[in-house]
Amino acid sequence: MEKIALPKGTRDFGPEQMAKRQFIIDSIKKVFQKYGFQPLETPAMENLSTLTGKYGEEGDQLLFKILNSGDFLKDASQPNLEARNSKLLTPDISEKGLRYDLTVPFARYVVMNRHEIVFPFRRYQIQPVWRADRPQKGRYREFYQCDADVVGTDSLVCEAEIILMIKDSFKSLGINDYTIKINHRDILSGLAEMIGATGNESSLFVAIDKLDKIGEEKVKEELKARGFNESSLPVLFETLNFQGNIQQKVEWLSKKMTSSEKGKKGLNDLTTVFSLLQTFGSTDEHVELDLALARGLSYYTGCIFEVKINHVAIGSVSGGGRYDNLTAVFDAKEKSSGVGFSFGIDRLYDALEELNAFPKNTTTSTTVLITHLDEGSFPFALKIGQAFREKEICCEIYPDRLKIKKQMEYADRKKIPFVVVVGPEEVQSGLLTVKNMETGNQSKLSLDEVVAMILDFNSKIFKHK
Amino acid sequence: MEKIALPKGTRDFGPEQMAKRQFIIDSIKKVFQKYGFQPLETPAMENLSTLTGKYGEEGDQLLFKILNSGDFLKDASQPNLEARNSKLLTPDISEKGLRYDLTVPFARYVVMNRHEIVFPFRRYQIQPVWRADRPQKGRYREFYQCDADVVGTDSLVCEAEIILMIKDSFKSLGINDYTIKINHRDILSGLAEMIGATGNESSLFVAIDKLDKIGEEKVKEELKARGFNESSLPVLFETLNFQGNIQQKVEWLSKKMTSSEKGKKGLNDLTTVFSLLQTFGSTDEHVELDLALARGLSYYTGCIFEVKINHVAIGSVSGGGRYDNLTAVFDAKEKSSGVGFSFGIDRLYDALEELNAFPKNTTTSTTVLITHLDEGSFPFALKIGQAFREKEICCEIYPDRLKIKKQMEYADRKKIPFVVVVGPEEVQSGLLTVKNMETGNQSKLSLDEVVAMILDFNSKIFKHK
Repeated sequence: MEKIALPKGTRDFGPEQMAKRQFIIDSIKKVFQKYGFQPLETPAMENLSTLTGKYGEEGDQLLFKILNSGDFLKDASQPNLEARNSKLLTPDISEKGLRYDLTVPFARYVVMNRHEIVFPFRRYQIQPVWRADRPQKGRYREFYQCDADVVGTDSLVCEAEIILMIKDSFKSLGINDYTIKINHRDILSGLAEMIGATGNESSLFVAIDKLDKIGEEKVKEELKARGFNESSLPVLFETLNFQGNIQQKVEWLSKKMTSSEKGKKGLNDLTTVFSLLQTFGSTDEHVELDLALARGLSYYTGCIFEVKINHVAIGSVSGGGRYDNLTAVFDAKEKSSGVGFSFGIDRLYDALEELNAFPKNTTTSTTVLITHLDEGSFPFALKIGQAFREKEICCEIYPDRLKIKKQMEYADRKKIPFVVVVGPEEVQSGLLTVKNMETGNQSKLSLDEVVAMILDFNSKIFKHK
Repeated sequence: MEKIALPKGTRDFGPEQMAKRQFIIDSIKKVFQKYGFQPLETPAMENLSTLTGKYGEEGDQLLFKILNSGDFLKDASQPNLEARNSKLLTPDISEKGLRYDLTVPFARYVVMNRHEIVFPFRRYQIQPVWRADRPQKGRYREFYQCDADVVGTDSLVCEAEIILMIKDSFKSLGINDYTIKINHRDILSGLAEMIGATGNESSLFVAIDKLDKIGEEKVKEELKARGFNESSLPVLFETLNFQGNIQQKVEWLSKKMTSSEKGKKGLNDLTTVFSLLQTFGSTDEHVELDLALARGLSYYTGCIFEVKINHVAIGSVSGGGRYDNLTAVFDAKEKSSGVGFSFGIDRLYDALEELNAFPKNTTTSTTVLITHLDEGSFPFALKIGQAFREKEICCEIYPDRLKIKKQMEYADRKKIPFVVVVGPEEVQSGLLTVKNMETGNQSKLSLDEVVAMILDFNSKIFKHK
């Protein structure tokens, strides 16, 4: 037998996993649509000129590159070949790569279609991305991202709506204990100003972003090593460690940041977002102003978000923020403000598994299996099966002649909730024997009664949505 | 500005195209599920050892290959490098490729998971595939396939169910004029026997498969060139050209193929499939026995199908058949009979466009835009928007201060069917001004009345399903 395997870091999703993933994706998609977002899909392959240089040097190395078709060595540089220099040879033999995220393809789409797009443009995109990362638990080389962005408006209503969408999504998913961390890049700039570190914002943000991972002492060491003045650190950590609700934090910061225009702008934005949230009829429940949240070295320029499910050993399941210059990477003149966020499907999946929170009966869409006792009953089984399908009931007809016990086992292993048994008696009376596979209850009912029972059962599935 | 473009043969799908594609995919998926099929997804990348040799030499050349990560030249053969031999160097620098179809990954999945899978296993799979083909009108380098297969049973009920599924899918899609061509590999073998061409089946099948493309004369020439005895051709074409309904064709062939065991088996299978179709309460309407249908040089061993939409300048939109040895490519001991078929989403899309058959309002899921006349009315607009969302109505709130005419234009360009206008009057009275963007009708209604109107509108969408 030929040895067969999956490429490292990739996975198959069988029926059971697919049903659960579908539950997550459908729940989120429904929320995206409810807030007026429209779908976009971009190709798996992009030109390397589109992808390269957008994710830092490390990101460039994690791009999967596609070998040019045909005689790819024809135009390859002889010196690069002779030197066996993989890095220099790559552009000679590869023009395309697999997308690394959904944000850069989105920016590319917006710039390429800016004359047709009606702004503000709200798009969602749910597609796999690929990274040649070292695979490990929870980290894959192919995984799904689930993004929603609005570009072409700087209205803070969008930020408030993102908080609403995150809340609605978790409600649909049946997750109640989670925290939406929010911060603002300008507040971070205000912090930098406060400690006399203007110009060194990047190092500061990268360091404090690690606060909950490596702790205060280690962050202090890193800052000192990066040349931050030791005397500035107490006021920094006093601020980062300030305890209080959002309003208290904002008031406290307002007093500290009186001299920073940026800081004041950031606080003002946040205050507006929370006031809009109230106008929407929502509250700041689940929301926390986290001054240590920096979201790495990314392109964000305004509010930033990150979402964690509490008491679950999984990193953030969602993140995002406002950016003012995303499309400028393709066209310097094209500076449209946008704000977006993304759910990580794989992490949500793991969290729901850990919480045992997948609704019952996500396993299969098939609700009923028609079994038959003997060959003579088979035509009646076919008729009954088709009658269910005409009522939009998902139904499988066991196709082979097999002992009824084996057919029952089949339904059981496939977690099909109802089995209809058709035998000579059923053919004669027209009444069906139905077994509820969960309770074991068996009853004799007319076709119409079975249909009504199953439709009722189906209507109760995913009820918490 | 940096020059940006999509890779050749790939496409973005913007909101309008996505909505139409979603309509096709949802319609088909619903039918697949109704017949008990469960979803499977496999990774975009497969090991080249899994893909190579499965699609013929031409297919191997059309595989997109992924450059190994890191220093890919490290272990490359020096002679191959020096000879600049792309073909020989490829296995040294590339281990993975993009999937070429959904059938080989499915077979790989079945073999890898054969101890966990409950057979008969019914899976559907809707994912993109990639081929480094020369792009041309209607032919892309990335396109979606939409497959359903059953493995682990040789019951002809599956063939009958495939015909039912094709019929149901076309009904959902609103396509009424189409032909399901059916044939059987054993009938083709019977034909070969009839004309003394046993052993040369492949050449025969390839040639007659082209009958409707290149015509009888050209096929005859090809057969002669391939060494078929000229005297055998009249009886071949008499058979291929025989006119009649399915029953008449079967009867006629039964008389001609008395000496071919295979031919008799094929005819017997077809007769059974049609009788099962009747038991299911269906008919042979839309179905045609096409003796020239051969489906190329593929792995089929039993019934074969192909579907054409009539009076539309597009090739077949669906095809499939029974195979007995699919999994044997990975494990010679693993011979499980299966039958499957596939829809081509891109061709269905083009056909529906050509027929102008997409249902109205597939364009957007957003049903209502909330506009506002002035800043003072904006908070009320937010409240109203959220009220719609709580009723599961997809709603966008125009976020910026802009003249009402411009906001209306926005709704019009995005094809949002309803616009609610909120101004000081509405804030005071609580009554909403609603404009139906299609009819231009404007009315003043309470929130509950607008909600009822829009829910009623939504319930009528895709009604022909």
